[in-house]
Amino acid sequence: MVIWSYQKMVKDDIKGVNMRIAIIGGGAIGLLTAYFLEENYEVTIYVRSTKQLQQLSNKGLCYKRGDKQEWKHINIDLFQNWQAKEEITFVTVKQYHLEAIYKKINACVTENNGFVFLQNGMSHLQEIKKLKTKQVMVGIVEHGAVKVNDYTVEHLGVGAIKLAALYSVNSFLKTLVGDKNPFFAIQEEKDYLAIMQKKLVVNSLVNPLTSILGIKNGALLENPYFYGLITAFMEEIAVILNLSEIEKENYFFYCVDVIKKTANNKSSMLKDIEEKRSTEVDSILGYLVQTANKRNLSAKLTESYYNMVKGKESS
Amino acid sequence: MVIWSYQKMVKDDIKGVNMRIAIIGGGAIGLLTAYFLEENYEVTIYVRSTKQLQQLSNKGLCYKRGDKQEWKHINIDLFQNWQAKEEITFVTVKQYHLEAIYKKINACVTENNGFVFLQNGMSHLQEIKKLKTKQVMVGIVEHGAVKVNDYTVEHLGVGAIKLAALYSVNSFLKTLVGDKNPFFAIQEEKDYLAIMQKKLVVNSLVNPLTSILGIKNGALLENPYFYGLITAFMEEIAVILNLSEIEKENYFFYCVDVIKKTANNKSSMLKDIEEKRSTEVDSILGYLVQTANKRNLSAKLTESYYNMVKGKESS
Repeated sequence: MVIWSYQKMVKDDIKGVNMRIAIIGGGAIGLLTAYFLEENYEVTIYVRSTKQLQQLSNKGLCYKRGDKQEWKHINIDLFQNWQAKEEITFVTVKQYHLEAIYKKINACVTENNGFVFLQNGMSHLQEIKKLKTKQVMVGIVEHGAVKVNDYTVEHLGVGAIKLAALYSVNSFLKTLVGDKNPFFAIQEEKDYLAIMQKKLVVNSLVNPLTSILGIKNGALLENPYFYGLITAFMEEIAVILNLSEIEKENYFFYCVDVIKKTANNKSSMLKDIEEKRSTEVDSILGYLVQTANKRNLSAKLTESYYNMVKGKESS
Repeated sequence: MVIWSYQKMVKDDIKGVNMRIAIIGGGAIGLLTAYFLEENYEVTIYVRSTKQLQQLSNKGLCYKRGDKQEWKHINIDLFQNWQAKEEITFVTVKQYHLEAIYKKINACVTENNGFVFLQNGMSHLQEIKKLKTKQVMVGIVEHGAVKVNDYTVEHLGVGAIKLAALYSVNSFLKTLVGDKNPFFAIQEEKDYLAIMQKKLVVNSLVNPLTSILGIKNGALLENPYFYGLITAFMEEIAVILNLSEIEKENYFFYCVDVIKKTANNKSSMLKDIEEKRSTEVDSILGYLVQTANKRNLSAKLTESYYNMVKGKESS
């Protein structure tokens, strides 16, 4: 007897059984992305540590939002076993772990493999452009999410992921975008440089200062002296990035908006410093310092904050 | 029967019975100065708090250096009772407590009263010049000393006090200088502006950065990123103070020397921040910002560090 199961007939169809997604990196963004994409695709998370592999295999993936808590089983494997069989790969590792991934991409991908890079900073853009594949998108994540332990992600602030294609040959962007889940919108942007720069500015204004001063994001607006810091720093960044007056205002308002929404949060860089991990300061302020040097511009504040974060990192 | 007591015949003579010294302020420097000057002069300490008055009256003044501990009885009174009867007055309060003292000086001193101001920073110089009296010296304290409690001072590093007259009419400098006690040398300097500037530079390089970063003084030399901070900041300060290349080098070496000698110490500003007291940042970096503004110079780093310290102070 044939059972015309809804599950088989409809859900698999919606899911698009043929569309497989790899997620490289088991951090907060990796886990969050896996949780939501699993609704519609065949997802596999690739992690580095065998401990996380075991935890995720044994317990499943746990998603928390407010009082809500949900468990899901998701395919999981070690990064060393990733073979680029999936049509789309989300790369969610930090900038300073990208090197190993570039090597593997160049070694085994074909023109059918699509990539989504979700790093902070800008310095990876020129590296990504050197990759063999041209099916590449870059994106920014506007969710607030924290990895509670190896198998649990807490969704603190619902935002969106904004993606833009690096080249016009992109064939898979349309598959991803749309109203698949209101808690995990994926939106298309036209100008990848604009979205990456905007995020770079936010990361530059918020992350270093909050981690140097040991303050929550909101203090940058509430304390008039700290507010003086971000306005002065914005002026320097605008010169380095050659922003127009309108762009400068626009970016700064965006930044104020992000700070307001995350007022009670500690920035990721502050958490990194507190937990004695490496920070992403090289791909954020380091990138700005390099850009200033190339353009023969002064970057006194940027260099100062860079040195403060690097010094804290190493002490 | 007359007793030709050594005490009466000799010691009082050495002491110079007629020379009375007032010390305004019962902080570390006030207590240290009182302890040593009491050997040769009739000393009275004037304090603000009745609690400290009682403690000092009941227990005496306790001086510690290494394993050594000594007690002395010293005259003590409330600042409100100070009437400028003493020939010399040492003003050892912090910059932000000077206002009340200026008023009293203008109200009751004559041309016979001499003053020694031992504040950090530079902004008090122009105020002191407005005082009625011209018998004024300014000085810098190169001792390491900490107030353990209301009646105890610990002498952590033996240095010297360097004094210079603000005007040529000074009549009492010669009395103070000389080899009275090797642990408390008072040395004469010719150029008051030079010594105050040199101390200002040290205070600017060491105090704000150590209190922003929460580090001991030595970290500024040991950590290469923090060392990068003080070299860059020295460049900006040299422009603001219009220092020659030779002065710049000279001041910087002096600063490195002070940091080496105090490597394991927390700066006074860091202690102020940790203990939620006001800092002296207004008379140090605030003075530099004002000077830069007057001269139409950029002071990006100075302003940034000023805002960081003020922000920490008020949060």
